[in-house]
Amino acid sequence: MKILIIGGGGMVGQKLAHSLADNPLSPGDAVTLFDMAFPDTGAPAAKRVTGNVTDPNAIQTLASERFDLVFHLAAIVSGEAESNFDLGWNVNMMAFRNFLEAFRSQHDASDGAYVPRIIFTSSIAVYGPPFPDKIGDDFPTNPLTSYGAQKAVSELMLTDYIRKGYVDGMAIRLPTIVVRPGKANLAASSFFSGIIREPLNGQEAILPVADTVRHWHASPRSAAGFLRHAATLDLDQLGPKRAMSMPGVSCTVAEQIEALRDVAGNDAVALIKPQPDETIIKIVAGWPRNFAPERAISLGFTAEPDFASIIETYLREDKA
Amino acid sequence: MKILIIGGGGMVGQKLAHSLADNPLSPGDAVTLFDMAFPDTGAPAAKRVTGNVTDPNAIQTLASERFDLVFHLAAIVSGEAESNFDLGWNVNMMAFRNFLEAFRSQHDASDGAYVPRIIFTSSIAVYGPPFPDKIGDDFPTNPLTSYGAQKAVSELMLTDYIRKGYVDGMAIRLPTIVVRPGKANLAASSFFSGIIREPLNGQEAILPVADTVRHWHASPRSAAGFLRHAATLDLDQLGPKRAMSMPGVSCTVAEQIEALRDVAGNDAVALIKPQPDETIIKIVAGWPRNFAPERAISLGFTAEPDFASIIETYLREDKA
Repeated sequence: MKILIIGGGGMVGQKLAHSLADNPLSPGDAVTLFDMAFPDTGAPAAKRVTGNVTDPNAIQTLASERFDLVFHLAAIVSGEAESNFDLGWNVNMMAFRNFLEAFRSQHDASDGAYVPRIIFTSSIAVYGPPFPDKIGDDFPTNPLTSYGAQKAVSELMLTDYIRKGYVDGMAIRLPTIVVRPGKANLAASSFFSGIIREPLNGQEAILPVADTVRHWHASPRSAAGFLRHAATLDLDQLGPKRAMSMPGVSCTVAEQIEALRDVAGNDAVALIKPQPDETIIKIVAGWPRNFAPERAISLGFTAEPDFASIIETYLREDKA
Repeated sequence: MKILIIGGGGMVGQKLAHSLADNPLSPGDAVTLFDMAFPDTGAPAAKRVTGNVTDPNAIQTLASERFDLVFHLAAIVSGEAESNFDLGWNVNMMAFRNFLEAFRSQHDASDGAYVPRIIFTSSIAVYGPPFPDKIGDDFPTNPLTSYGAQKAVSELMLTDYIRKGYVDGMAIRLPTIVVRPGKANLAASSFFSGIIREPLNGQEAILPVADTVRHWHASPRSAAGFLRHAATLDLDQLGPKRAMSMPGVSCTVAEQIEALRDVAGNDAVALIKPQPDETIIKIVAGWPRNFAPERAISLGFTAEPDFASIIETYLREDKA
């Protein structure tokens, strides 16, 4: 199977690429990674193509290779999409449309024989408040960030291309992915990883929100697992609704911190420094707290059972 | 007030233009109509600009006039958007994005002083089955047509531009508008008007679906009324959710026909010729049947109380 990971240089993309290298979906899998840049070290065995998703020629060249399976992970993250309106809409919507068009033109050129499977990473940011205690599969998508709007738009476009038979696939709404290895990024959710990762590495971490904040998490390993499962799932059973929330762990920041204490003790917890940030407090107040992702669970998607397991995954797989 | 109607040559655009000419929203209103073409006769007093919404220069020139109020009605209708995928997405999504960008650039050029009010006509086609008996304001948008997807995408874009303060406004999800004067159009819903209009004009009409089909209707007069109401409403009370279903009349085709019989007798009803069309049957099976548009009603939007009133509106205002 010819597999393409757009955004293959990013954290989840690399996790997925490693997973495919260690455990192929089928014998003879050939994996291509596309991204603006790749990590210097620890990269898995895969072909690398450097380019920008906003470059139509680059995407058309990729599409002409007629990959069987395409994971589309590239995006401007939430904080940056909010501060840079043009960049967010250009990358997260317009480039995704160009991507769909490039693959549709290959479908047309094949007289309809070529129907790639596209697995798109959407986000729980498609939902906006007020929220129920648990967000069910039929909760409407009223995003309150540009990032969330761009993801919701992309889901609608993908679903229509699928409905018309130009491509197949689905959109998976990822929980916030923690514990991210490496450095903090521009996502407003970055601190959810930072307050675990930094103390486990003996460094101070800023906590910009109250510890009563409840949120919805899954590990990088689970993210890669969702993508792998979507790649091999019988999609006909999904019917026309091709976007759904993934499973995860709902917990408060205080519960995150207690899980850290259990693993790493009081000294680690003491490295977390509360420092309220009104901008982040305001953004996070508009985020979902808990889900009832019954559809995804019934389709066999799985995540960690609790936050302690998420920390254990980090220590086992991702700690530098 | 400087008012622009994009799609001002169309049926609802003309109805609105007539309404604004007869009864201005404020003293000294100056109305500009933009469309590809205009009716030869019966046009209201208004400036006409001929052009295509897909022409960025034309839209930028319009935007530079800094209208206070813009009604955006232009669209490729449902049947045509389904048969011509490129045309539908280019007009109903891409041109709407270019329109928003043109007005945002005027906002930026004014250092934020210019914030036009944009009233966008969306559609109940943003909803897809399975439906509850009545679709409430929190029912999710899962369109099953390209037209519905394009309208849902446009709502998301408009809502994000509003949230960022670049424009103000709202999106109104119109019921199917009946009884449309003039000729049948390419909308799959065209027969809902045809089975009333043609018999009232002594002509045969094709009924392509079973008379048990239930659907959601409002008159052209009500459509213009929704737009006028949205133009003067205090939008702050809407909060961040800027798209909503409008009121209407839920009835079956059989009930439509009985209302026609009451007004025009058995001879008129005898002109309706059942002629099942599998394509239209399939499309209409995916359409909403009834709504509980409580939000719009609480905001003061009003429609006809029953289908007989819709026929009376046609006879009084629209019959050739």
